[in-house]
Amino acid sequence: MSNQATQALQENIAASPVRYVYLFNEVESAETDVGGSWEAVRSLLGGKGANLADMTRLDVPVPPGFTVTTAACNAYLAADENFPEGMWEAELQAVKAIETMTGKAFGDPDNPLLVSCRSGSKFSMPGMMDTILNIGLNDDVVQGMVKQTNDERFVYDLYRRLIQMFGSVVMGVPDEVFERFITDARERAGVEIDAELSAQDWIGVTAKFKEVFRTYTNSDFPSDPYEQLRLATEAVFKSWNGRRAVDYRNAAGIAHNLGTAVNIQTMVFGNFGEGSATGVAMSRNAFTGERELEGDFLINAQGEDVVAGTRMTQPISDLKNFMPEIYNQFEQIAARLEKHYRNMQDMEFTIERGKLWLLQTRDGKRTAQAEVRIAVDMVEEGLINKETAVRRVQPSQVDFFLHPQLSQAATAELDPIATGMNVSPGAAVGIVAFDADTAERWAKNEGKKVIMVRPETKPDDVHGMLSAEGIVTSSGGRTSHAALVARQFGKPAVVGVSNLEINLDAREMTIGEKLVITEGEWVSIDGTLGRVYLGKLDTVVPDIKNPYLLKLLSWADEIREINVWANADYPRDAERAREYGATGIGLCRTEHMFFETERMPFVQQMIMAKNVTERNEALDKLLPYQRSDFEGLFRAMNGYPVIIRLIDPPLHEFLPSYDELVQDLADLKVQLQHFHTLSEIDEALGEIKIKSNYLERVMGLRESNPMLGMRGVRLGIIIPEITKMQVRAIFEAACKCSKEGVKVLPEVMIPLTSHVNELRVQQKALETVAEEVMEEMDCRVAYKFGTMIEIPRAALTADEIAEVAQFFSFGTNDLTQTTFGMSRDDAESSFLIEYLGRQILEDNPFATIDEKGVGRLMRMAVEDGRRVRPDLEIGICGEHGGDPKSIDLCHQLKLNYVSCSPFRVPIARLAAAQAVLRDR
Amino acid sequence: MSNQATQALQENIAASPVRYVYLFNEVESAETDVGGSWEAVRSLLGGKGANLADMTRLDVPVPPGFTVTTAACNAYLAADENFPEGMWEAELQAVKAIETMTGKAFGDPDNPLLVSCRSGSKFSMPGMMDTILNIGLNDDVVQGMVKQTNDERFVYDLYRRLIQMFGSVVMGVPDEVFERFITDARERAGVEIDAELSAQDWIGVTAKFKEVFRTYTNSDFPSDPYEQLRLATEAVFKSWNGRRAVDYRNAAGIAHNLGTAVNIQTMVFGNFGEGSATGVAMSRNAFTGERELEGDFLINAQGEDVVAGTRMTQPISDLKNFMPEIYNQFEQIAARLEKHYRNMQDMEFTIERGKLWLLQTRDGKRTAQAEVRIAVDMVEEGLINKETAVRRVQPSQVDFFLHPQLSQAATAELDPIATGMNVSPGAAVGIVAFDADTAERWAKNEGKKVIMVRPETKPDDVHGMLSAEGIVTSSGGRTSHAALVARQFGKPAVVGVSNLEINLDAREMTIGEKLVITEGEWVSIDGTLGRVYLGKLDTVVPDIKNPYLLKLLSWADEIREINVWANADYPRDAERAREYGATGIGLCRTEHMFFETERMPFVQQMIMAKNVTERNEALDKLLPYQRSDFEGLFRAMNGYPVIIRLIDPPLHEFLPSYDELVQDLADLKVQLQHFHTLSEIDEALGEIKIKSNYLERVMGLRESNPMLGMRGVRLGIIIPEITKMQVRAIFEAACKCSKEGVKVLPEVMIPLTSHVNELRVQQKALETVAEEVMEEMDCRVAYKFGTMIEIPRAALTADEIAEVAQFFSFGTNDLTQTTFGMSRDDAESSFLIEYLGRQILEDNPFATIDEKGVGRLMRMAVEDGRRVRPDLEIGICGEHGGDPKSIDLCHQLKLNYVSCSPFRVPIARLAAAQAVLRDR
Repeated sequence: MSNQATQALQENIAASPVRYVYLFNEVESAETDVGGSWEAVRSLLGGKGANLADMTRLDVPVPPGFTVTTAACNAYLAADENFPEGMWEAELQAVKAIETMTGKAFGDPDNPLLVSCRSGSKFSMPGMMDTILNIGLNDDVVQGMVKQTNDERFVYDLYRRLIQMFGSVVMGVPDEVFERFITDARERAGVEIDAELSAQDWIGVTAKFKEVFRTYTNSDFPSDPYEQLRLATEAVFKSWNGRRAVDYRNAAGIAHNLGTAVNIQTMVFGNFGEGSATGVAMSRNAFTGERELEGDFLINAQGEDVVAGTRMTQPISDLKNFMPEIYNQFEQIAARLEKHYRNMQDMEFTIERGKLWLLQTRDGKRTAQAEVRIAVDMVEEGLINKETAVRRVQPSQVDFFLHPQLSQAATAELDPIATGMNVSPGAAVGIVAFDADTAERWAKNEGKKVIMVRPETKPDDVHGMLSAEGIVTSSGGRTSHAALVARQFGKPAVVGVSNLEINLDAREMTIGEKLVITEGEWVSIDGTLGRVYLGKLDTVVPDIKNPYLLKLLSWADEIREINVWANADYPRDAERAREYGATGIGLCRTEHMFFETERMPFVQQMIMAKNVTERNEALDKLLPYQRSDFEGLFRAMNGYPVIIRLIDPPLHEFLPSYDELVQDLADLKVQLQHFHTLSEIDEALGEIKIKSNYLERVMGLRESNPMLGMRGVRLGIIIPEITKMQVRAIFEAACKCSKEGVKVLPEVMIPLTSHVNELRVQQKALETVAEEVMEEMDCRVAYKFGTMIEIPRAALTADEIAEVAQFFSFGTNDLTQTTFGMSRDDAESSFLIEYLGRQILEDNPFATIDEKGVGRLMRMAVEDGRRVRPDLEIGICGEHGGDPKSIDLCHQLKLNYVSCSPFRVPIARLAAAQAVLRDR
Repeated sequence: MSNQATQALQENIAASPVRYVYLFNEVESAETDVGGSWEAVRSLLGGKGANLADMTRLDVPVPPGFTVTTAACNAYLAADENFPEGMWEAELQAVKAIETMTGKAFGDPDNPLLVSCRSGSKFSMPGMMDTILNIGLNDDVVQGMVKQTNDERFVYDLYRRLIQMFGSVVMGVPDEVFERFITDARERAGVEIDAELSAQDWIGVTAKFKEVFRTYTNSDFPSDPYEQLRLATEAVFKSWNGRRAVDYRNAAGIAHNLGTAVNIQTMVFGNFGEGSATGVAMSRNAFTGERELEGDFLINAQGEDVVAGTRMTQPISDLKNFMPEIYNQFEQIAARLEKHYRNMQDMEFTIERGKLWLLQTRDGKRTAQAEVRIAVDMVEEGLINKETAVRRVQPSQVDFFLHPQLSQAATAELDPIATGMNVSPGAAVGIVAFDADTAERWAKNEGKKVIMVRPETKPDDVHGMLSAEGIVTSSGGRTSHAALVARQFGKPAVVGVSNLEINLDAREMTIGEKLVITEGEWVSIDGTLGRVYLGKLDTVVPDIKNPYLLKLLSWADEIREINVWANADYPRDAERAREYGATGIGLCRTEHMFFETERMPFVQQMIMAKNVTERNEALDKLLPYQRSDFEGLFRAMNGYPVIIRLIDPPLHEFLPSYDELVQDLADLKVQLQHFHTLSEIDEALGEIKIKSNYLERVMGLRESNPMLGMRGVRLGIIIPEITKMQVRAIFEAACKCSKEGVKVLPEVMIPLTSHVNELRVQQKALETVAEEVMEEMDCRVAYKFGTMIEIPRAALTADEIAEVAQFFSFGTNDLTQTTFGMSRDDAESSFLIEYLGRQILEDNPFATIDEKGVGRLMRMAVEDGRRVRPDLEIGICGEHGGDPKSIDLCHQLKLNYVSCSPFRVPIARLAAAQAVLRDR
């Protein structure tokens, strides 16, 4: 351990109260000892221990027990694995106290107290020590219990479990060895499941287990219950520094000096005959959020049996008939716990011979739908306030309402053909493709929906993943390439489907033993639950008009300080944006309109023009289209601002690609040799001429790095006719709408400024056009001219730029590319994925704004810009505008608005409110 | 005039002394009136007036005269073109004073005083009014003078000149009209030159001129000398606001409120018989800088005759024989003026009947060689101090010593075939090519030296210009595309050769009437002087070891605070760098070594490797080459640091290009059809397979924006084998040299860092290799690891990066590309040239660091980096490292060094010293 860590640990010990053991009913003492805060109690007793003590205080029936503190663990580890002074004595006293409470005695064959031992640190953490049940059993106690219960099978099953758990967990005997003897016993008995083994079988197994224990540990299984307790306690302490635990803490950023507590609790048995039962239940419906108990239980069974799925569970509502009083009691307890924790509870219970015991409670996991409904209901029930409700729903949960899910009807009666890890949520339906090229070809050229299935994915596969609806892999985990890429691009994915085998030669895959699926067959996947179904299942888009969601968003709107606008290129997008609550258009990409089939010929004619006259002829034909698009936008956004960005991409994007033209020409020349009629030849020659012209122009426009080339304002300066046409279209549309009574607020945005003079030159030319049009149409509309801040130099010289621009809009996509010197197209299919996997970068900077670098530029631009022009309107229109973490940054920077895809507007509204709450 | 300008003018007037006229001998009064500063005297009297007054004070014989102040001009213009109160009266008094001094009288036919009138503002400025000579002549005075001089021809020549100058300059009569009558007279007299016209001819011309004057101005030529003087004075004032003058001031950034002075001076005549003469002389040799009078004179002649070249001038040394006393007097005056102005003087003089008059003195123009020698000599003569010498020589003049010039021997006896504007200095020799493609093909494919000749150039021509040795155009001026591009790329160029005509169809050009040059013929151009010669002339590189230059640079070294290092990839570059005074290698580009013919196969093998084993096999073959290069560098730089940058470019740069491979494959497939023997076919198929493999790999490596793609540290992280090999080679070489007694100071530089974690990961891996090698070789050398700062994010997060890096090196080429979002390759052949031409950008940011944007990032990086690591070594290794303006910025930022091409090291040494002096 480093010196620093040792010192921190010493301080931690020094700051702790000297008391090392607290009974569950001593929570007030613990609170007093740590100074009153519940957070400090959790630190001292661990999450599990604190909650058990808390339930005890609430008079919820919890089997008596006690917690050895995290401070004891830290002291033990600091002292070369020696219990701190007085700790063991305190533990023994606590056992006495339990004996008193239960009327049983530890190690007493006539009336034995059995206990469980569980680890429990402040944060739930895989890699810590597993549970040991039934501590306190030995040969004598077993004999005594057999006498009392008259159930030899039951008692020996308990005993062999203790030896097995103790052996594997405390002493490190491989669990497989124990399991092999059970398999052996089943085979010899000729039965299928453990439950069918007889008492004699278990007696045999127990004897074998003792032998195994001796062989592996060179010592007998300790028959002294106190020895068992001491070793179990030590094992929990040691597991804090186990490799998996340390790795997990490093990965999750949990401090190494917290330590773990040890919870010792009286055993209760749900398999103690027909009056006994065990189960789990939620205080509300975890799928819909409805206010009703939801869960399952099993009569005469143990918790393990519920999990193992070997017996059919009963719905919790059946308990009402079976044990009405117990059911009532449980219902009341659930309500009490909800009121206490102000959240839906997920509870484990056991009924031992007619008495209800709660073994655990925690905040329940739930669907997004349920989260929203429960938050809203709880506000109306007075359990929480609006701020808490807004804080509680994750923006990603709002996303649920906007993306397809497999319909409940489709999956209700259907078993998945395979399951794997649910690494990227949502549903996807498509035909199976086994490689990236096939996936891309089918999707792009043939318009098919594809699910790409691979053993695992590599950077070479990214183009296929992007074309696919969803992804399935047979290997890989949550941080695999497939998982990372899928999440990045919002593709539903199921990875690590271990019983899936792909035969690329046969173009088919086998699931399990028998099911063979050929490439091209339909499958459906549920990335939210990690399931794969056969066939083409129905999907549904959950309703954005869900009344609970609308209410929650209206509360968010009351809280948030930053406006939420949308990026919309067409009137239909603008309408959707309004519907989702956007109060402005932050980005209309005018060039998207150029790509429409009917317009492309004119766009290409404009680019191929040999002179300004020809160019203007082509532009004159485009103008009416643009004008009518803008009219639609203005009408949809009546009274709200509309920011229109002038043409941005390099011109070559509007022409066929170089590769395509070269290929076409080669093909045409080959064809030419096979033509016979003069008209065929003439036609081919004409085609060759056209393509050659295109090729020549494409060659002329070719750039080494088009991203950093002739585009944006550079294009506007060198070929001013295009942007002039666009501004004419904007103002003709604005004047027309204005005369019809629509309130228009156009803002013209010039992209890619890096030097104020570029803006000066272009803006001056365009303002002249705007004034001309308004003169011609005898109409005045209020307007603004402004620029994107998407090049570092623009941010660095924002003071100069603000002298000219009336508004700034951060184009964080390009700003990220240039600030990182990283081409997104190239990076995301190569090193970026590896960077994320190796944690060289924590977040994908194209998904979440890089606060240190890009964020620093943004801060400079905001400060310098507003110094020069205090009323400067500043927003963001990159994809980050819909990312909650980035929205938080925009709120910190006091931007006027974030603008995002209409689909993300609800998410942004919520995230913006949470940013405010985070400040409070 | 704008309100603002009017206000500034009023303030200027208010601040001026009320005296409007100063005699040349009243310089002390002027000094007192403006508060003592010479600068203020120049503002008040203009440059010419101040210098005439100054010479008068120095007892240099200057014809008496006076200056009407710039303040008078401003007052005149502000008062709607009315003389300010008292000005005219003061001018009349000044005339009286001259009359007294000269013993002549203005308008007196018996003893007439004639004067000249010249404009003169603070800064020399084209577009201002021309000189008017001989003011004071009229019919009566002419008669009187004829009597006195007995030289009717002389007197009428003076008279017609007055009418001509007054008519054209003051009254706006087109000069061509006057000139036509002189041509007429020559034709009628049957003579070739004006000097051969007789007195009668001039009398006739004078009469015609009077008629012309009357016809054009509707008034007679004013016979009143005072009327002549008044109108001439007003004409000078008005010319301040003439269109050409205003345009010039706008372009040159000269304030519009300075005003011009008017200088009235007694006429003296060098054509007053054989005892008279006129000439110009420099106080030192303007070509070599030797300390001797240098110039020409003409007996019995006027200044114009010297300029017109109609008579053969005599060298100034002949004056010693002709008029020994005058020569001595002149020599003494020259020495006195040099001592006064502490600079070499360029003097105009006139000898009127045995008396010497100085008409002008100013600092003389000289060659770079002369500038350097004069500066050094003057220090040794005690005229100036070392600082002044260092300040005086321009860094661009040092450049002269490093680049080819046409040899003096070659041009001594040769006339240029054409002249044009000298827009980009240096000599170039090559064969004529008339278009860019031809120029490029000849240069690149055939290794020929080419001079590209075009009517004018456009962005499409840039590839040809880059391939050419030099450029000639028939049209265009100093700010034409050709001029800008040529200067950018250091290509000698002559533009605006107006008598050049290019016939593209015939592939030939005609110069003047007769000379025809066919494409492919040799020409030589002198961009320094704007001359074109026929044939292949010899060039020389002036000697860098010039003792004057070495002395000057040694003084610069004493002054400068920043170190000057060099960029060197090979031992031979390092040796040159040392020779030129570099004290370190700031950048060794290791990948340049990869491009050597013998190494390329291994580099390609490494890239085509199917697995790590194959890759390492190839790298093992490259290692010895790299190691031996590094050994050479370390030896050459014994005792000085060597910064070695690890591989930077994307791998595809080492493979054939996509276009090339596609073409090759198409060709091979066509060939295949024509082969007959099996072995031919086999060979072709083998070739196709290899090329196909290459093509596949090139496709895999293809990126949309390679500049922002998989290169630099990204490559080092994804394929660590390459950089590991390089570091091994560095340390093997370092240890070997160290053992031999060479003092090695290797610094390993990791390129393209944008996030500290990239550096952390790569540096850790490489430090391990370094330690391993030193362990193996049982040798320790001091080393550093550091990074390029060439991505905005690196500069923005310099504090984090400085935690890992021991040094920073600003890669301002890439930093400029990313900060501007501008790909240099694309920009310089398209919009950037237009931006510079339209002054959207003042400087090419790839030549001179953009201080506002890139400079701001650099400042942040220096401050943040040094805060974390106070001894952080910081330098610059982009091309800007050799640019004086950028070096000044680096000095301001307190970098440790600038690193530039070895050829620019002397320039950088001087510029670095000047940066210090600018601070003082």
